Amino acid sequence: MTTRTADPRVVPLIAGRWSPRAFDGSDLPQADLDVIFQAAGLAPSAFNYQPWRFLYAHRADAALFAKFLAPLVEFNQSWANSASVLVYVVSEEAMVSDKGANPNHSHSFDAGAAWAMLALQASALGYHSHGMTGVDFEAARAALEVPAGFRIEAAIALGTMTTPEGLPEYLREREVPSARKPVGEIAIAGTFR
Amino acid sequence: MTTRTADPRVVPLIAGRWSPRAFDGSDLPQADLDVIFQAAGLAPSAFNYQPWRFLYAHRADAALFAKFLAPLVEFNQSWANSASVLVYVVSEEAMVSDKGANPNHSHSFDAGAAWAMLALQASALGYHSHGMTGVDFEAARAALEVPAGFRIEAAIALGTMTTPEGLPEYLREREVPSARKPVGEIAIAGTFR
Repeated sequence: MTTRTADPRVVPLIAGRWSPRAFDGSDLPQADLDVIFQAAGLAPSAFNYQPWRFLYAHRADAALFAKFLAPLVEFNQSWANSASVLVYVVSEEAMVSDKGANPNHSHSFDAGAAWAMLALQASALGYHSHGMTGVDFEAARAALEVPAGFRIEAAIALGTMTTPEGLPEYLREREVPSARKPVGEIAIAGTFR
Repeated sequence: MTTRTADPRVVPLIAGRWSPRAFDGSDLPQADLDVIFQAAGLAPSAFNYQPWRFLYAHRADAALFAKFLAPLVEFNQSWANSASVLVYVVSEEAMVSDKGANPNHSHSFDAGAAWAMLALQASALGYHSHGMTGVDFEAARAALEVPAGFRIEAAIALGTMTTPEGLPEYLREREVPSARKPVGEIAIAGTFR
């Protein structure tokens, strides 16, 4: 069952990626995770500054995983608890060099590009990912010791998808790829309208 | 010549994407552009809100293209003038519904994810893309009539790559994929450090 259609020329990895909530809690090998982060780091960024940072915890490291899980809103905790790895994407707000610090217009935008690469690479290795902004960002900043000057963009659940039986009933019916606006609504030839 | 190495398991489309400046100025068929925007729209976003908008101008539409080119800083104008299409990525800052408007924590981040999908899809169709924040954003807002409540994230040059002979000499040597930080510098097991 799918709620999405795409032109056959759309890259299958892009068209097929979606964000489930049913994860099996299995281990995700560090070697795979490193490849996923390497792909994320290949995203483009302004002046190639690479403002992104990824903080992560494996589920197998129960104490650390609990610290990463706690800032999520209760709804997200309920299913993300079965992810293999929880990640927080953080971006550096300024470009810092020997000459001082300058605002970076695109630190969040660039971090989002890295997140997209991460998601696709995870798919390519047979995993699934689910981004979350249902996060108590203040709590996350405290728990993860994120200093001023870095913005917490989102959390990500990474893992191996399983059947939706383990989800509460109201989530089972949402366990399908979500629809998208038609191209005509997001792409505009000419000025804004 | 490349300045990048990647694990062989990194998706080739991700590892091979880079941002040249030598474009040949040829037409980019609208049908291809539509596929590129469709792929962009398949990015994940908070609550599937899809805050991204893409304003674009084909080079063949000289008057509109000039309007899109003018807000770029002079340096970017010099080479982006040979792109096939200029795009501005804009994001809606709030989530608007019947119940009112709420701040969207991830509007820029989500737009960045869409930009990454756009870049990869362009590569898959044989084109190249180059994001720019060397933009007079105030001028762009005026020229493109972008209303309050929408943030201009970046401009994008899209087109067909050519040999670098047409570039000024100081740019020819930069016409290679840029290097990246090692994974150990961007991915952190545990809290921030």
